[in-house]
Amino acid sequence: MSKTQAEDWFRELQSTLIETYEAIEIAAGSNARFERQPWQRPGGGGGTMAVMRGEVFEKAGVNFSQVEGEFSERFRGEIPGTDEDPSFWACGVSVVVHPRSPMIPAVHFNTRHLVTQKSWFGGGADMTPVFPDDEDTNLFHSALKATCDAHPMADYQTYKSWCDRYFYLPHRQEPRGVGGIFFDQLNSGDWIGDFEFVKDVGRAFTSIYPQIVARHVDEPYEDRHRQAQLLKRGRYVEFNLVHDRGTRFGLETGGNTEAILMSLPPLASW
Amino acid sequence: MSKTQAEDWFRELQSTLIETYEAIEIAAGSNARFERQPWQRPGGGGGTMAVMRGEVFEKAGVNFSQVEGEFSERFRGEIPGTDEDPSFWACGVSVVVHPRSPMIPAVHFNTRHLVTQKSWFGGGADMTPVFPDDEDTNLFHSALKATCDAHPMADYQTYKSWCDRYFYLPHRQEPRGVGGIFFDQLNSGDWIGDFEFVKDVGRAFTSIYPQIVARHVDEPYEDRHRQAQLLKRGRYVEFNLVHDRGTRFGLETGGNTEAILMSLPPLASW
Repeated sequence: MSKTQAEDWFRELQSTLIETYEAIEIAAGSNARFERQPWQRPGGGGGTMAVMRGEVFEKAGVNFSQVEGEFSERFRGEIPGTDEDPSFWACGVSVVVHPRSPMIPAVHFNTRHLVTQKSWFGGGADMTPVFPDDEDTNLFHSALKATCDAHPMADYQTYKSWCDRYFYLPHRQEPRGVGGIFFDQLNSGDWIGDFEFVKDVGRAFTSIYPQIVARHVDEPYEDRHRQAQLLKRGRYVEFNLVHDRGTRFGLETGGNTEAILMSLPPLASW
Repeated sequence: MSKTQAEDWFRELQSTLIETYEAIEIAAGSNARFERQPWQRPGGGGGTMAVMRGEVFEKAGVNFSQVEGEFSERFRGEIPGTDEDPSFWACGVSVVVHPRSPMIPAVHFNTRHLVTQKSWFGGGADMTPVFPDDEDTNLFHSALKATCDAHPMADYQTYKSWCDRYFYLPHRQEPRGVGGIFFDQLNSGDWIGDFEFVKDVGRAFTSIYPQIVARHVDEPYEDRHRQAQLLKRGRYVEFNLVHDRGTRFGLETGGNTEAILMSLPPLASW
């Protein structure tokens, strides 16, 4: 029952995000639309990867997945609730947007529900501008703070610090972007309450990013800004391939490579 | 004494390769030259990273390094000859060339000498064309085979297979390129003989790659070839950041990030 509710929400959220980003392309006079590519997971389940290569959004990926099966020996015990029974069920939506304009921040969002012998939610959202803008950063952080503050189980400062620690490149000694929130293994004992929080994170993200895009979509820029963006995207690639646990876990466990690497930018330089 | 000989050779090889690639730029009417950037390693030693961003070679990196110090607890025992004494000395040259034209293969070369309580040589060379060409592949493999065949301690088939196994992307189920040779922990008991082999690998590489470049430098290409090259380079990035042991070891042990990531292409796409 709770699985079905979560799955329905994540499917709906994927559709909403796709419509939201397509509307921005339409408003910019672009014909670009998302291409949906369904995929099956050999061990059980699958998903729909949706990618748009547009004018405003040089590459936007919105991936829905619902997978299930059993963790291999190697990962049993590492994942909560798998000591005695390795079976799992997982469902979620992940989003990465790489805008064409270097004046518009890139963004990442993910929410998911995991069920083993335990059950929990995880997710977060963080923003990666090339040229950080205080007003953008405030808008983004404020939206996430308001969402956390409205739910008793969500502690904004904890989730914000978690995000800052996670999205950090030690080999460059620099953060990936300006942060946001990150949470995992959220189970307050109130499933409905936790689920409402996760839905509100999705709604807040859906609403706030287009506002930030709108602030910069008509802003002029020069080739040097584009070059800075391509270098910044190189750092993004470094983070995802070297440090991101989800990416490494996915590649090492034979996940869907195209869906996992959907996050990589359309063009990057070193 | 042997350390000095090896170091002298690696310095000479760096200079030779720099001159070789600059001569190709000059012949193409380009003013591009290598920029040499010396760097110090906090724990001891350092190197000179030389990078050229040219017309024929969109990005060519030729790095010399001579580092020494002690392996941290974590790596003791993993590296031969460090069980009782963690000190090490290492010297070598590594090269990565990303040509601008998608018709010219990218290439990678590395040779090094390691001294702990044991001592050995390692290295190799491999080529990554966007559009594999049998004649190029034969030229490259033949040069390396002739070099191995001239030295009794070097078994070409073993080194070729080692290269094929190493430069493979399991998550894509595809090889990085068309291979070459790869060898490590080479110590036949004849230091001078091993050193002569390593020098000949350097000479063979110095000689053969420009011949392959010359076969394609004036070949016309279209935007679709360039797009294929940028995608292929994305795979190159994936290999280096996800799988390459040298890269991961370097980043995890606080090596010189710029020198380690010199291998990444000037531009790549996903």
